Amino acid sequence: MTDPFGLWPNASGIVRKMRIAQVAPLYESCPPQLYGGTERVVSYLTEQLVRQGHEVTLFASGDSKTKATLQAPCARALRLDTQCRDPLPYHFIALHRLAQSADEFDIIHFHTDYLHFPLFVRHWGKTLTTLHGRLDLPDLPPMLREFAMMPLVSISNAQRMPVPWANWYGTVYHGLPSNLYAGGCGDGGYLAYIGRICPEKRPDWAIEIARRAGMPLTIAAKVDEVDRTYHETRIKPLLEDPRVDFVGEIGDSEKGAFLGDAAALLFPIDWPEPFGLALIEAMANGTPVIAFRRGSVPEIVEHGVTGLIVDSVDEAVAAVPLARTLDRVAIRRRFEERFSVGRMARDYLALYDAVLRRGTTGAVMSSSAGARRGVNGDRSLGRSHGS
Amino acid sequence: MTDPFGLWPNASGIVRKMRIAQVAPLYESCPPQLYGGTERVVSYLTEQLVRQGHEVTLFASGDSKTKATLQAPCARALRLDTQCRDPLPYHFIALHRLAQSADEFDIIHFHTDYLHFPLFVRHWGKTLTTLHGRLDLPDLPPMLREFAMMPLVSISNAQRMPVPWANWYGTVYHGLPSNLYAGGCGDGGYLAYIGRICPEKRPDWAIEIARRAGMPLTIAAKVDEVDRTYHETRIKPLLEDPRVDFVGEIGDSEKGAFLGDAAALLFPIDWPEPFGLALIEAMANGTPVIAFRRGSVPEIVEHGVTGLIVDSVDEAVAAVPLARTLDRVAIRRRFEERFSVGRMARDYLALYDAVLRRGTTGAVMSSSAGARRGVNGDRSLGRSHGS
Repeated sequence: MTDPFGLWPNASGIVRKMRIAQVAPLYESCPPQLYGGTERVVSYLTEQLVRQGHEVTLFASGDSKTKATLQAPCARALRLDTQCRDPLPYHFIALHRLAQSADEFDIIHFHTDYLHFPLFVRHWGKTLTTLHGRLDLPDLPPMLREFAMMPLVSISNAQRMPVPWANWYGTVYHGLPSNLYAGGCGDGGYLAYIGRICPEKRPDWAIEIARRAGMPLTIAAKVDEVDRTYHETRIKPLLEDPRVDFVGEIGDSEKGAFLGDAAALLFPIDWPEPFGLALIEAMANGTPVIAFRRGSVPEIVEHGVTGLIVDSVDEAVAAVPLARTLDRVAIRRRFEERFSVGRMARDYLALYDAVLRRGTTGAVMSSSAGARRGVNGDRSLGRSHGS
Repeated sequence: MTDPFGLWPNASGIVRKMRIAQVAPLYESCPPQLYGGTERVVSYLTEQLVRQGHEVTLFASGDSKTKATLQAPCARALRLDTQCRDPLPYHFIALHRLAQSADEFDIIHFHTDYLHFPLFVRHWGKTLTTLHGRLDLPDLPPMLREFAMMPLVSISNAQRMPVPWANWYGTVYHGLPSNLYAGGCGDGGYLAYIGRICPEKRPDWAIEIARRAGMPLTIAAKVDEVDRTYHETRIKPLLEDPRVDFVGEIGDSEKGAFLGDAAALLFPIDWPEPFGLALIEAMANGTPVIAFRRGSVPEIVEHGVTGLIVDSVDEAVAAVPLARTLDRVAIRRRFEERFSVGRMARDYLALYDAVLRRGTTGAVMSSSAGARRGVNGDRSLGRSHGS
């Protein structure tokens, strides 16, 4: 295989250094202090690429911690900045500065939804955009059609369902640093729920499942302003059950013990979640998951190995004793094989290569050509690393 | 005076044709079907420039009505489109298409806040941006500093107060087609309130003023979703007064009779409104205004000629009989002299000229140069047309 860009280890095992820009959203720092999926993944990927010797510039909020060169258009993460009412200006400032210095990078990797599309149209051949959010939004298809030249990455194959015709270059599943968590023993005697209190993640179902399975439940979750009423009226009354413990939002340092000591993670989602980061965080701690068959769940969870995939609260209740029989060492091993940050970085480097080959050898791709290339014609890297 | 761009009438009174892009927001059509200030002004300006023989392309929603060439990224105005949840993609599509065809225009006039700044940095020397909104927002100054090369227009001098150091090229007051309204007789026997029900426009004060002045009040206003609770709890109880008539949102065809028959327009604002379009709509009907001394009011209203400027509800009550003594013919005449669409178009053409001279003769202006030029050094066209 030819390797014009020197992305692959040569005979001496040396990978040629690339100049890479990673562009994170500014809502959370990289990594986030507490909750925050996208910025967390960008941070893991950035530090891994630095470790591999690449020259990486991270566009992120000023309170980010990184070994890459940090370019910050704002001092603090915007979610925690009470002065900030409109996040768009800071994103525009970051994108403008990047556009002015685009020549200094071999590849520019965006994690900023579609915000950068208009500004980077003429640079499409050296960009890759990971879409981190749900894609079943009515206003997204016109955007993806208009900017059909922009190379896209999905974080699960399920995520693509609403727009299978978009310009997909591959699926790359998220990964975590292998040393972030050690395997836990799962002997805390409780079930775990982690993340956010909101209707689509069904904390009420988690409480019902734990109660009917006869086990305590510990909930580590934030409550966004938009979900305040839901929390007050629907969830808070359920927290009076003495076997339910609500500990609020927790950070990385507490997460290992919280997940590692849990008998299982409950993931009773009621929406097509594009990638459940909590699932692989549990696996990294050797903890089995009991997850509803929605969105990316069947791609992430190996039924009977790393967890149990269920279709109802009844099935979830029945799954609790089964989950506790799963081999925690095997779960941790599957995490290392499938969801390490090393695997994620390799997948992305391969896609950087694919973009650069197409961007420099082909003519500027027309919108219609982009729209014609469907989901079946691309390279679903994530899937090939699956099982 | 040299005239390299041929913007001024030559000896035969002929103005050389310019290729002008007008870029409207997409929330309302141009003109709006009902309420909507910015798109209304863009529409008036566009049609006037077409009438003067310029080659105008209007970027606006597909349900706009114009004699210019219409470029529409969406079929309908977004505020009335229940399918639309995120307005940004459609604005991005419009700006992208415009950027691709920027060479086809001599001048590009934006009315889209700061949305176009990153994409048109390299075209700054052929752009003009009218900022239509309030400027005392905490996230705006970083944006105006980063994009200090973009030529800006204010719609009143008062509007600039929070950012006097920005790259102002002038103030241009809004204007209306002179034939839109005829002078009314003001013999309806009622006071008028028009616009939006919201705390900062103080419809409650309008009701109090009318009650204490012993006159009926007619309210023609929309209620936005965000103001629903305010309307239900604070205003609706006041509407039980039989002398207060709430007629909801009205269109252009009804507005003439509504304002023309009114004894006076009450404008008891409690915020620094950048330009009160209703004030000049009233003047166009010969109707005096009673307006609070906030924001642009002292620039628009000539105290004792076109209305009365007051500082309190007490003063407003006392002003009602005085307002009825003002000469309605003189009010209409001052409207024609100061707030016609012809005057607005002349002001803007002069600023297009100023931009083109600086954009082509000067080097690319540095950000610091832009930031140094303050409010006193520019050409405040609006003021010179004032009195």
